[in-house]
Amino acid sequence: MSERRELIVELGERSYPIYIGEGILHEAGELLAARGISKKSPMLIVTDESIAKLHLPLLEKVLQEAGFTAVTAIVPPGESSKSLKVFEELVTKALQAGLDRKSAIVALGGGVVGDLAGYVAASYMRGIKFVQIPTTILAHDSSVGGKVAVNHPLAKNIIGAFHQPELVLYDLSTLQTLPPREVAAGLAEVVKHGLIWDEAFVAWCDENAERLVQLDSDALGYALYKGCSVKAAVVSKDERENDLRAILNLGHTIGHALEAVAGYGELLHGEAISIGMVGSARIGVRLGAPEEIYAVTKRVLSRVGLPVRLPEHLDTDAIMEAMMHDKKFQEGTMTFIVPTSIGQVEINSSVSKALVREIVEELKREA
Amino acid sequence: MSERRELIVELGERSYPIYIGEGILHEAGELLAARGISKKSPMLIVTDESIAKLHLPLLEKVLQEAGFTAVTAIVPPGESSKSLKVFEELVTKALQAGLDRKSAIVALGGGVVGDLAGYVAASYMRGIKFVQIPTTILAHDSSVGGKVAVNHPLAKNIIGAFHQPELVLYDLSTLQTLPPREVAAGLAEVVKHGLIWDEAFVAWCDENAERLVQLDSDALGYALYKGCSVKAAVVSKDERENDLRAILNLGHTIGHALEAVAGYGELLHGEAISIGMVGSARIGVRLGAPEEIYAVTKRVLSRVGLPVRLPEHLDTDAIMEAMMHDKKFQEGTMTFIVPTSIGQVEINSSVSKALVREIVEELKREA
Repeated sequence: MSERRELIVELGERSYPIYIGEGILHEAGELLAARGISKKSPMLIVTDESIAKLHLPLLEKVLQEAGFTAVTAIVPPGESSKSLKVFEELVTKALQAGLDRKSAIVALGGGVVGDLAGYVAASYMRGIKFVQIPTTILAHDSSVGGKVAVNHPLAKNIIGAFHQPELVLYDLSTLQTLPPREVAAGLAEVVKHGLIWDEAFVAWCDENAERLVQLDSDALGYALYKGCSVKAAVVSKDERENDLRAILNLGHTIGHALEAVAGYGELLHGEAISIGMVGSARIGVRLGAPEEIYAVTKRVLSRVGLPVRLPEHLDTDAIMEAMMHDKKFQEGTMTFIVPTSIGQVEINSSVSKALVREIVEELKREA
Repeated sequence: MSERRELIVELGERSYPIYIGEGILHEAGELLAARGISKKSPMLIVTDESIAKLHLPLLEKVLQEAGFTAVTAIVPPGESSKSLKVFEELVTKALQAGLDRKSAIVALGGGVVGDLAGYVAASYMRGIKFVQIPTTILAHDSSVGGKVAVNHPLAKNIIGAFHQPELVLYDLSTLQTLPPREVAAGLAEVVKHGLIWDEAFVAWCDENAERLVQLDSDALGYALYKGCSVKAAVVSKDERENDLRAILNLGHTIGHALEAVAGYGELLHGEAISIGMVGSARIGVRLGAPEEIYAVTKRVLSRVGLPVRLPEHLDTDAIMEAMMHDKKFQEGTMTFIVPTSIGQVEINSSVSKALVREIVEELKREA
C-alpha cells in the first residue's frame, strides 16, 4: 500500500481537501460525512458507462453502508456528453430524485464527467455541493480550480462557472485500468505543472518517467500530489482567472488549435498540449531563454510517452486561424505563456504572429 | 423632472451602483463607460419584442453614439423565454457576435429578460459583465441581489446562478407605458420591502398609494429607491442566501403555491404574493403579533390595487401540496417568514401545516 497524501486547496471559505491514496474509495462514506455532506438529502452520482462498470458498484455500496441516499445518472463516455442536452437531462434526474439545497452531486470519472456534473452542481438551485472522484490522471488538473463547463456546438467549455468542490477523492487503484495512451496524455498536465512552477519536480519527472508510465502507485501518488499542489498554489492566488492563472495555459494555445484543426479525437488533449509545450519552449528560446528549456521539455515529454512533433498534414493556416479564435486573445491581443527558465514562465502579450507561424512549421519537422 | 437618485449595493469587490431617474437612458453611454464596460469588445443587448418597440431604438442610438458596438437579441415576451432553449440561442448569438471575456450583456426589460440575460452573462465563458436596465416596477426586486435563472419544465428558476451586475439603470420614463395591473403587481414587492424592514416606509406607501398607482415620477422614484435600498441591505448581509435573505420570501411560500396551482398566468407574481403576504400577516397574528399587522398589510396592498383574497376555485389540497414542493422547505422542515410587528419579520421554522391550512381557507373568505 502506497503512502496516503492529503492537501488543502486554499480558497478562504471555499477551501477544500484532496485525498490521494490507494483504496481510498472504501472510505468515501466517512470522508463525505466529515465534510458535511448531508445524509438526509438525496445525492446524485454522475458517471459514464465505462467507469460505471469498473467502480460504480463499490461507490454505491460504500455510500449506502454509510447511510447516504444516492441516485445515479450514467452518461455515454466521451466529450459529446458535455452538452446542454445532457446537462438538462441531469437536472431532470436531480429534480425527480428530489435533490434539495443541501444535496450534493458526486462526479465519478474523468474530466468530462467532472466538468458536466460540476456545472449541474453549480447551476442546480443556483449551486449545491459538489464532490469529485477523479478516475483518470488528466482529471487531477480539472479537479483543482473549480472550472466546470459544457460545450456549445461552436465552442468548447463556453458555458460554465467557477464552482469549487467540497472535497476530492483520488483513489490510485482506479487508475490501474487506464490504457497507456491515456496515461501519457494525463501525464502531460503533470509535467506542465512542473514546467510552470517547480524545477525540482521537472527533474523528478525526468528521472521517474518509467515508473509513472508503469503506473507505480507510489510514483503516481507523488506526481498527482505535486501536480495538484502546483495548480492549487496558482488557483489560490487567482481564483477567477484574472491574471496569474493564465500560466496554467502553457502549451494550450497551440494545443487547442491542434485539437480543433485535427478534429476532436485524432489528438488527445494531453497529446496536443505536449506538442504545444514544445512549441512554447521553442518560442521561449527564440525570445532569449536558455537553450536547455527546449531540450529538457522535449525529453521529459518523450519519456512519458507523449508526441512532440506536430502532425504534418495539419494545415498551418488553419492552425493559425484556430488560434485567433482562442478565448485567450482578449480584444485581439496575442498572448502566449512563454518559459523563461525550467520551472518558470511569463505571460507575454507581444508574441508576434509571424514567430508563432515559424514555430508551427518547425514543430512539423521536430526530430 | 423628478429627483435623480443613486444607491450602492454593498458587496465588497462586487459592489455596484443603481441609478434611478427620469430619462436616465440617455446617459447610458457615459454611465456604462464610467463603470468600465469595454468599447473594444462587442456587447449583446437582450430584450423582448414588446420592450424592443418602445425603448430599443433609443438605447441602441445612445450606445452607438458613445462608441459601443452592440448586437441585439429579441426574445418573445413572457415566462416561456426563460428556457434552456432560448438560453442556448443567446449563447449562439454571443459567439457569432464575437463576445469575449471583456464583453458585457445588457438586459433591457423586466424580470424575465433580466433573469435570462443574467444567466447567460453568468455562464458565458464562465461569467462576463452584466448590465441591467429594468423597464418594470417588479424588476426593481430582481435587479438587486444577483439571482439569475431559467426555468425547467418541472420547476421555476431551478437552473441559475448568483451573478451581480456592474450597474443598474432605472429610467422612470420607461415605466409610464406599464398597464395598471402590472403596476400594482410590481408594487407588491415594493410594499413587501417595507413590511420586512421599514415601518416608516410602510406608512409612506399607505399615504402615497394613489400617487404610486398614477405613476407619479417623484413618488415612484422614491419608492423604487427605498425598495432597492431594503433589498440591498438584506443582500449585503447574506449574498448567497444562507439565512437572512430568506426574509425576502415574505408571502412567497403561499404565493408560489398559488401561481403553481392557478397555472402561471391567472395570477401575476405580485398578485399571488399580495395574497401570500395577507396570509403571512394572519399567521403572525395567530402566533401572537399585534392585530394591526393584518389590518395595515391588507389596507396598503388594497390601496395599491392588489388582490387580498384567495380565489375560491383554487383547491386547498393542491395548494398545500404545492407548498411542500417549494424549495424553501429544507429537509422537510416547514419554514415561514412571519411578521412580528410592522416592518419586522422572523424566520419561523415550526409553523404547523394545520395552521397554514386554516389560513388558506380563511384567505378564501377575505372580505
